[in-house]
Amino acid sequence: MKPRIDIITLAVDDLERSLRFYREGMGLATTDGITGTEFEPDEVNAAGAVVMFELEDGLTLALYPRGELAKDAGIAAARAESSGFSIGHLVDSRAAVDELLERARAAGATVSGGPRERPWGIYSGYFHDPDGHLWEIIWNPQQA
Amino acid sequence: MKPRIDIITLAVDDLERSLRFYREGMGLATTDGITGTEFEPDEVNAAGAVVMFELEDGLTLALYPRGELAKDAGIAAARAESSGFSIGHLVDSRAAVDELLERARAAGATVSGGPRERPWGIYSGYFHDPDGHLWEIIWNPQQA
Repeated sequence: MKPRIDIITLAVDDLERSLRFYREGMGLATTDGITGTEFEPDEVNAAGAVVMFELEDGLTLALYPRGELAKDAGIAAARAESSGFSIGHLVDSRAAVDELLERARAAGATVSGGPRERPWGIYSGYFHDPDGHLWEIIWNPQQA
Repeated sequence: MKPRIDIITLAVDDLERSLRFYREGMGLATTDGITGTEFEPDEVNAAGAVVMFELEDGLTLALYPRGELAKDAGIAAARAESSGFSIGHLVDSRAAVDELLERARAAGATVSGGPRERPWGIYSGYFHDPDGHLWEIIWNPQQA
């Protein structure tokens, strides 16, 4: 397995709500909105409608309905559990951590656990997106 | 918010088991193993012990104990739900999808939902890692 990840897909309850949260709320503009609507579901295949954000360095962040992801993966659908994983996002100052968490709160996210200094030298705080997915916003002075 | 993700942290039940799965089992070699053990937990702070894999393009894949992630994030610990998200990994041939899924199975993963052609033109299949985290291994002929 090569040391690379190409796509991170978040299961969501409502594509339009999540698109609004990330595009209008958080300001992630690099998306064509909801695409793939021409792929209708059938007995075997999940529906194709998806939101994709092109991120830096070739990475894609995708939003995909929870039930469709479960169908595509051949697994049972379940609620997101926000402690199952987190996505780390680096910013370039302590103030930028605070500002981005505030922006997330204003956009409808829940802010938890911070922001504060961690013993390993970072300043960070967390928010959950509308589906409970966890983001850690991090300033690492050692990388400044 | 800039369109970038820097770290993906997977909550795990057993750091050593998960390190073995990804390093020995899947062949992800770009790691120093378990680090940060000098940061002992206290009333406020989570333990620092973590596994980090350096991926291509500056991305880091981290493995972190479920309870510590919950403590660090100020949230309740809970089981991973494998339909909450998936990580997409592109390979360069159809055979490589089959081979990597076989490797994952041999390393102790559960293979579900494929591999097969999807209506949107990819060939892919899924596996769950030992903690239930979902990976989709993808060949996209349109990108070949």
